[in-house]
Amino acid sequence: MSSFGIGVDLGGTNLRIACIDDHGNILEKVETGAQVARGRDFVIRAMTDAIKSIALRLKDKGSLCGVGIGVPGIINKATGMVRKSPNLPDWKDYPVKQEIEGYLNAPVILENDANVAAVGENWLGVARGLDAMCIITLGTGVGGGIVINGDVWDGMTGMAGELGHITIEPDGHPCPCGNNGCIEQLASATAIMRMARQAIQAGGAEQMKAWAASKDQEFTSKSVFVLSEQGDPAAKAIYKKVGVSLGILMADLVNTFNFPMYVIGGGVSRAWTAFAPAMFQEARRRSMVYAATAPEDGKEDVCESAKNLELGHTIITRALLGSDAGLFGAARLPFLRKPETVRV
Amino acid sequence: MSSFGIGVDLGGTNLRIACIDDHGNILEKVETGAQVARGRDFVIRAMTDAIKSIALRLKDKGSLCGVGIGVPGIINKATGMVRKSPNLPDWKDYPVKQEIEGYLNAPVILENDANVAAVGENWLGVARGLDAMCIITLGTGVGGGIVINGDVWDGMTGMAGELGHITIEPDGHPCPCGNNGCIEQLASATAIMRMARQAIQAGGAEQMKAWAASKDQEFTSKSVFVLSEQGDPAAKAIYKKVGVSLGILMADLVNTFNFPMYVIGGGVSRAWTAFAPAMFQEARRRSMVYAATAPEDGKEDVCESAKNLELGHTIITRALLGSDAGLFGAARLPFLRKPETVRV
Repeated sequence: MSSFGIGVDLGGTNLRIACIDDHGNILEKVETGAQVARGRDFVIRAMTDAIKSIALRLKDKGSLCGVGIGVPGIINKATGMVRKSPNLPDWKDYPVKQEIEGYLNAPVILENDANVAAVGENWLGVARGLDAMCIITLGTGVGGGIVINGDVWDGMTGMAGELGHITIEPDGHPCPCGNNGCIEQLASATAIMRMARQAIQAGGAEQMKAWAASKDQEFTSKSVFVLSEQGDPAAKAIYKKVGVSLGILMADLVNTFNFPMYVIGGGVSRAWTAFAPAMFQEARRRSMVYAATAPEDGKEDVCESAKNLELGHTIITRALLGSDAGLFGAARLPFLRKPETVRV
Repeated sequence: MSSFGIGVDLGGTNLRIACIDDHGNILEKVETGAQVARGRDFVIRAMTDAIKSIALRLKDKGSLCGVGIGVPGIINKATGMVRKSPNLPDWKDYPVKQEIEGYLNAPVILENDANVAAVGENWLGVARGLDAMCIITLGTGVGGGIVINGDVWDGMTGMAGELGHITIEPDGHPCPCGNNGCIEQLASATAIMRMARQAIQAGGAEQMKAWAASKDQEFTSKSVFVLSEQGDPAAKAIYKKVGVSLGILMADLVNTFNFPMYVIGGGVSRAWTAFAPAMFQEARRRSMVYAATAPEDGKEDVCESAKNLELGHTIITRALLGSDAGLFGAARLPFLRKPETVRV
């Protein structure tokens, strides 16, 4: 009889749960109505109820190995509790792990959401089967997750992989983290909207201005992408800036890690065609390690990834699993960290 | 009977060899007259002769586990040969490993010089016994070496840890690697001399100008340090720039790795008092991970390192072994990579 893991994604507006067996077969994927905004106690109760009912339904199919929970924030490795999470303020230092373990009688592991996205892409996504890789998630903020020797590299205190706060422009836009010019200030949806507003204010961005003023359509980083694809110079300039900034980041990461693959996920990664060419060009120029190991110039893009990987090239590519990466990665955690080795 | 490893340092003007047993006892340390500039064949012969005579002398004390050679350049992991070394041009793709193994009948491992310095400091130096750490070596250039799970993290093709080429100023001084504003262009002895010449040319750096014009004393990055310690504002400004740049690098590294320790070695690290205060200040401001795990403000310096480590703080500190780090690290390699697991 096989065993299965349950993954929970706390990152979105809804609570999402997946149950996956140790071969990577997805047994169940549910979305509960339990909005994270309704508070910790409500969410924990809804979560444990949902997990219990899934575990009960699936008990003929195997045994529950454990539960992984992807959390948008920093986890305290020593305690397994949430150290800092802007979206989940009342989870800080709350013994959520112990509480859910009490309800479920199974090990529970909390992990940063970008870290579990890395595990998900490494298990079932574009980086399937690789021993080492990292992911950058471009959303409202920029997250990062590193996998080394098949598991999350979370460092001394669980805070490793904060790749969203690597410095790109030392005198650039201030970041809430205290730094200036982090990649989060140059390649997140928030940064794209800031650059769009600046371009509108500076004048000469008439199409963005018209869209922003329209009452029919919301103006988002996706709108800027649509305009960029239509050839609007101001919108194109913004995504070029995103690409150049990501190219600097990728050059740093390739020079540091020499991993076989670097994955870019999150909502903004859907604008791949708008930022990837500048990113590849910049990474090639700035990293001798990338230049020495990159695919042939012009053959770096997504559709060539499988072949390039086979050829032993360094791959920079898009995530495959979308918002499921974190969910599947969370379900994988109990297998990676068997009960006897669970880090608490 | 114990076994011993032999380490070779090819980085300096002379060939240096150390023999160390598996407990870390230094059995012998010799410097041969074989200058690297005399060419590959001469050096290989002198090296093997010296190693043979040491092995013969020590044969009653144990068995030779293998030989590690620290090379100033990039090693091709697939072949074990030198891929690129500006100082050893005729070593490129030469089967030096196989040739020496033929002479010695013992496994030979080539490794980048900063990588072996990391291993040396991790084995017998300031980072003794830590599971993970990295080193930055500030010399003519800037090297980097990463240790994860007790061994060098050398990546997919052996090119990981090129931390000297992490971007600090995207539009900064051009680097031979193709990038602009690498830390090598801001914190190496070469960079310090460039900044000194620029300051002299710009005027207002009278003391540096006088020293540079003097026939009695050579004008080096050490001269700039001496003037900085004497309070010369122009010299102080240069080392402050070095410190700020290193602080940006350290913030990036701490955000990425969350290691317990980051070690700074190489000749320029002797100017620690001139650059460290700005470095600590900048790292604290720019890395929330460092800010959350750093020693108490003002208690970050070298003399507090042991205590800070015990307290679980993130340590940024000076290397302990000087130029011996690479020599000892090279001797350690055969133990880390037992014959059956030697990567060839």
